[in-house]
Amino acid sequence: MNSMQQESIIIRKVNAGEAWETQDILAVEEPLEIQVCYSTATGRMNKNISVTMRTPGHDAELAAGFLFTEGIIPGIEAIEKIQHIGADENRILVTLRQDYLPVLNNADRNFYATSSCGICGKASIEMIRTLTKYNTTPGSLTITPNQLQSLPNLLRKKQEVFEHTGGIHACALFDVHAELMMLREDVGRHNALDKLIGAAAMQQLLPLHNYILLLSGRASFELIQKAAMAEIKMIAAVGAPSTLAVELAKELNITLIGFLRNERFNIYSGEQRILL
Amino acid sequence: MNSMQQESIIIRKVNAGEAWETQDILAVEEPLEIQVCYSTATGRMNKNISVTMRTPGHDAELAAGFLFTEGIIPGIEAIEKIQHIGADENRILVTLRQDYLPVLNNADRNFYATSSCGICGKASIEMIRTLTKYNTTPGSLTITPNQLQSLPNLLRKKQEVFEHTGGIHACALFDVHAELMMLREDVGRHNALDKLIGAAAMQQLLPLHNYILLLSGRASFELIQKAAMAEIKMIAAVGAPSTLAVELAKELNITLIGFLRNERFNIYSGEQRILL
Repeated sequence: MNSMQQESIIIRKVNAGEAWETQDILAVEEPLEIQVCYSTATGRMNKNISVTMRTPGHDAELAAGFLFTEGIIPGIEAIEKIQHIGADENRILVTLRQDYLPVLNNADRNFYATSSCGICGKASIEMIRTLTKYNTTPGSLTITPNQLQSLPNLLRKKQEVFEHTGGIHACALFDVHAELMMLREDVGRHNALDKLIGAAAMQQLLPLHNYILLLSGRASFELIQKAAMAEIKMIAAVGAPSTLAVELAKELNITLIGFLRNERFNIYSGEQRILL
Repeated sequence: MNSMQQESIIIRKVNAGEAWETQDILAVEEPLEIQVCYSTATGRMNKNISVTMRTPGHDAELAAGFLFTEGIIPGIEAIEKIQHIGADENRILVTLRQDYLPVLNNADRNFYATSSCGICGKASIEMIRTLTKYNTTPGSLTITPNQLQSLPNLLRKKQEVFEHTGGIHACALFDVHAELMMLREDVGRHNALDKLIGAAAMQQLLPLHNYILLLSGRASFELIQKAAMAEIKMIAAVGAPSTLAVELAKELNITLIGFLRNERFNIYSGEQRILL
């Protein structure tokens, strides 16, 4: 058990009228402030980019993944180093290489719209198209229904924090043989995916058009958008997708599977990659 | 079926090797931009506050609830009117009464930390204490285990969008007799709670220390924080709480129940309100 990611406390459990004190294990949630340091004509600048409520651990991957999937940096090559600052491990500084500037109006996209930013779903999708630097090849990845149906169990077996706490999101990358390559967990679903894509980027695995992304929960627009930034072409979710998630997947020719449970699943987009 | 909140599409379903086309219903996700208009010495100002991915419907409640639970306005009394602007229902303008200014550094709290903002969990909790204008009385609300255990079924029966889509969060307010008073659903868990608190504020029900809040999913720090702003003293979640959610609940003397399912539940904080 990793003490950064889960914590033990004493609680009272009630079951069928009986109550007793017992130990319970919780998923840790703490804020992480992400700062970027970059060079300007007049010297070095530090800028606070975001504060996210995350499960500690894999913070450097989270920071790198967040900056990349939000379009603030073009890729891992923009990063010189990443280090925690301050005493409590809740601040992290990403120093960019000379010649790289953070693209900050992208980061603001989801929070502070500018007057030039259309705000209907269609406009959001159009903006993603512009930002994604891959998204050029349809990819040749295919998968059989049997392989697809094996993914949730493979994920569950490796989900250490969920195992104990029941309170955490997970996402994982599988290769073309449906083998689990990489798994990340976090109390925030966006963070879990940012950690995963950040880790893949650090291992020089991008673009990810030959990998399958599995999400332990629902598929929202923002998760599809983040996956698209890394050119993921196949996304399977244990939960339901939203309308805008399906629209974005169709627009970018991404295979989107939902309700992947036991023997059944739904194909929302990109059926050609499923060998029915 | 409300066509703003759910949408029907044709998908391919696969089950035990069989595949067929069928109709599927998705939870609608669309961006909502929240703008605030307020008076300054030099005239009226419009400011973009936030863009959130939400399920359309109850947009005015969402905007009012968000502004209040994030500490941007002190209460519903600050609002003169709320109206959609633009053609697509995805922008909403909240006009403040004269003499009210939006407190914007609070809004930035979760996204852009300032240098004066401590960033460990303890500092976040301290900040909430300062922001919450109620939180003065412990309240006299109590509940029996039987009443508690009845809540999830009462919620599920009324959850119209979840019923069809399986892809949406819900939260509800129950009165002291464990009767469901109000329910809101959204693809975003924060939005569901903002809609609920916004609706309660519009009906002049605040402070809510005599109501029980039920969350369909997990209890994160930010949900406890939003509930605390409305002086909710009892929160029951079907899912797991995080460490920081439990710490904040203890600090503010809020009863926090987790894993409320069938005959069992866990008490994480404020046991004195449960009549064991």
